[in-house]
Amino acid sequence: MKVAKFGGTSLANAEQIKKVCKIIRADQERRVVVVSAPGKRFREDTKVTDLLIQYAERFLEAGEAPKEKQAIFARYQEIVKELQLSAEVGGQIEAELDTVLSNQKNLSAERFMDAVKAAGEDTCAKVVAHYLRSLGEDAHYVNPLDAGLLVTDEVGNAHVLPEAYEKLASLGADRGITIFPGFFGFTKSGDLVTFSRGGSDITGSILAAAVKADVYENFTDVDSVYVVNPNLVAHPVEVKEITYREMRELSYSGFGVFHEEALIPAYQANIPVCIKNTNNPAAPGTMIVNEPPVSTKRVSGIASDSGFCSIYVSKYLMNREIGFGRKLLQILEEEGLSYEHSPSGIDNISVILRERDLTVEKEARIVERISRELRVDDVSVTHGLALVMIVGEGMRQSVGTTARAAAALAQAKINLEMINQGSSEVSMMFGVKAVDADRAVIALYQEFFCNEEENQPVLASHVSSVSV
Amino acid sequence: MKVAKFGGTSLANAEQIKKVCKIIRADQERRVVVVSAPGKRFREDTKVTDLLIQYAERFLEAGEAPKEKQAIFARYQEIVKELQLSAEVGGQIEAELDTVLSNQKNLSAERFMDAVKAAGEDTCAKVVAHYLRSLGEDAHYVNPLDAGLLVTDEVGNAHVLPEAYEKLASLGADRGITIFPGFFGFTKSGDLVTFSRGGSDITGSILAAAVKADVYENFTDVDSVYVVNPNLVAHPVEVKEITYREMRELSYSGFGVFHEEALIPAYQANIPVCIKNTNNPAAPGTMIVNEPPVSTKRVSGIASDSGFCSIYVSKYLMNREIGFGRKLLQILEEEGLSYEHSPSGIDNISVILRERDLTVEKEARIVERISRELRVDDVSVTHGLALVMIVGEGMRQSVGTTARAAAALAQAKINLEMINQGSSEVSMMFGVKAVDADRAVIALYQEFFCNEEENQPVLASHVSSVSV
Repeated sequence: MKVAKFGGTSLANAEQIKKVCKIIRADQERRVVVVSAPGKRFREDTKVTDLLIQYAERFLEAGEAPKEKQAIFARYQEIVKELQLSAEVGGQIEAELDTVLSNQKNLSAERFMDAVKAAGEDTCAKVVAHYLRSLGEDAHYVNPLDAGLLVTDEVGNAHVLPEAYEKLASLGADRGITIFPGFFGFTKSGDLVTFSRGGSDITGSILAAAVKADVYENFTDVDSVYVVNPNLVAHPVEVKEITYREMRELSYSGFGVFHEEALIPAYQANIPVCIKNTNNPAAPGTMIVNEPPVSTKRVSGIASDSGFCSIYVSKYLMNREIGFGRKLLQILEEEGLSYEHSPSGIDNISVILRERDLTVEKEARIVERISRELRVDDVSVTHGLALVMIVGEGMRQSVGTTARAAAALAQAKINLEMINQGSSEVSMMFGVKAVDADRAVIALYQEFFCNEEENQPVLASHVSSVSV
Repeated sequence: MKVAKFGGTSLANAEQIKKVCKIIRADQERRVVVVSAPGKRFREDTKVTDLLIQYAERFLEAGEAPKEKQAIFARYQEIVKELQLSAEVGGQIEAELDTVLSNQKNLSAERFMDAVKAAGEDTCAKVVAHYLRSLGEDAHYVNPLDAGLLVTDEVGNAHVLPEAYEKLASLGADRGITIFPGFFGFTKSGDLVTFSRGGSDITGSILAAAVKADVYENFTDVDSVYVVNPNLVAHPVEVKEITYREMRELSYSGFGVFHEEALIPAYQANIPVCIKNTNNPAAPGTMIVNEPPVSTKRVSGIASDSGFCSIYVSKYLMNREIGFGRKLLQILEEEGLSYEHSPSGIDNISVILRERDLTVEKEARIVERISRELRVDDVSVTHGLALVMIVGEGMRQSVGTTARAAAALAQAKINLEMINQGSSEVSMMFGVKAVDADRAVIALYQEFFCNEEENQPVLASHVSSVSV
């Protein structure tokens, strides 16, 4: 059995939904289908989820938002009409949507927002189920509440509860095709809560794990994952196969193809994930698997993310002070900050954080606390850093990968603010100034993917070849 | 005014003591002199301090140790005789030494051990003062108790108390030449406590800071500090000038010329330190200064130290767990361990520790605690690591140092277990297998010091030159 999830662009309009249903019907193994809300039909278009958020915000402010509501209805009406669904079906779908949008249950503001956001996926699932039935398929919409998709009560950031898997497992035994809305679940008390944005990927992964699917197909609008951001490099090398670990490291640093959290359920249940293109389903796509293929390239991908800052602390003989690092991290923890990395010298340590977590007030308070509580010689904050990551299973085993990477960056005249290597077996991380990040990624791509010899063991003499 | 400290080999026998006194007399600014205990006269010889330790151990076991005591007396008797000091002086020195060795004060075992160890320096200082007086100099032995060298009550590992500096300052106003024994001080209660081994360097540094010396001269048996361990490389490049920070980083990783703690008082009081050779006092030596010279080389030194191990911990989505790193470090702290470095990946973190701190029992307990308390996916310990350090002010500013270093190591077929760069501005650290450490140091020395172009900015094309 296959669990297939279709993203927003795959469901943006009737034409796309027809492609989706053609894909579903082309393989009888595709028995559980997860859908997003309709995405953009063209570049300047607005995603249905964004229309819903605009509606909810206006409604909460003004008690009504007829213009915004009409924009949402219009999207679904167009789809229903072009799919030639009956007026009765259209009316029923619209009535159910209107129940949510009118807040007939008198939900609190935050619960209302979550319910409205979720209505995008929910309505879309109903539309797809109706359309498949109109084509003669035995398809049925399933509500996450009835199916038992139990989640934590974290509004807008729910996490699946372990007992959900057992309940959801019975979906695998359902007759016909199950159409399941992505992006949300229900608390044990029956309250609707959404996952973080883009969370339909998570729903698909949970269902694939629950029904023990042979594969979790994730249909998007690209033929495959690329080894580097295609906005930086024209026609980059495609990734045929990548491991969960590699994908996780790449997702972390701005590799936006697949939702970061979505890998977990599939990973834990060892379900392969296949990233495919709704617009080109014949393309093999990218397989995300547990074990690296024997023929794996040393480097599987290159990514970068900006928006990091570094807190530098120095104190003479710091390294003799048992507990210094722990106390420093404790201050950050008490300020609610999670840190990313912590390179250290002999008498100094830096902590790399995401800038978005550090307000001006928080920064001032942390600097003051470090200075006062840890009696350091120096503490300062550097902003505008980016992390550039090279990811590849087995990279660590090959002498010279660091040399090639460092030489490529040096040739591009990019200074290394930080190197972090030695814990992960699959990645190597370079800190650079944010302004240099794109050039760094391009330089590394050229070194590792535009070089005939990229699978050769590398010596210094080899490094020179990049300068040719 | 200069404070001059002479090490054990500089005082190993009468001939060496004569050299020392010639040096003292050659410069009227040398008004405060700190001496070690006599060191080895030849390769197989035993240092007086080691003779004293052997004596104290035997005495504590057996209540007497005549053979061991005689060995100590013999060393001083030989010196006194060859310096042609009077029998009266010799007898007085020996009697005072015997008071300590016989434990006439009925000290506890650990206090006795400290007192006996300190007697090496103390007796030597008396000998030197007598000899200088015999040459007509106005020299006088000063006892650290009388001078106010107040220290913490940590037996064998004392630290200077802040109030000591004020008391010791008056030494600068003393007439003539002060001869001061290194290695020990006294608690506020008047108990003798030694510094850590090699601590005469610390005494000299404290005195230099207290009397606000123009320079702290540290006389040893080498013409200068070398950029690399001369046991690994024949006739390595000499260091003319190096900053405190560079020296501190090098001392940390096995650069044994100067006691690690000894830099602190000089550093804090901004007193330049000059490492000179008793056997070749005309050589300019190595200056340790606050600010790097303008003409500084990018790399000032290369050093390595083995005996490290790494605790690797992995847990899916670790980086989202606020406080994970802090909790991990807290477990180590609770086990009394100070950690060295902590490289991290996305879902994993390693902690580098000194192996000597980790017993088999402690290791098992820590692994069990990490596994249980942090509910990690994986935890393992790797032994036999070495850290190789490249140190140089301004190194960070120059694009390509990393590339050159990594290429040189790759060419030597040395795999990098870890790279730690990004906090210290003056060093870069590579983790390698201990068996590879010497080869790594040699490869880096060849790259950075046996290359005409070592001060050029480095591009990949330059890196290739190491392979020629």
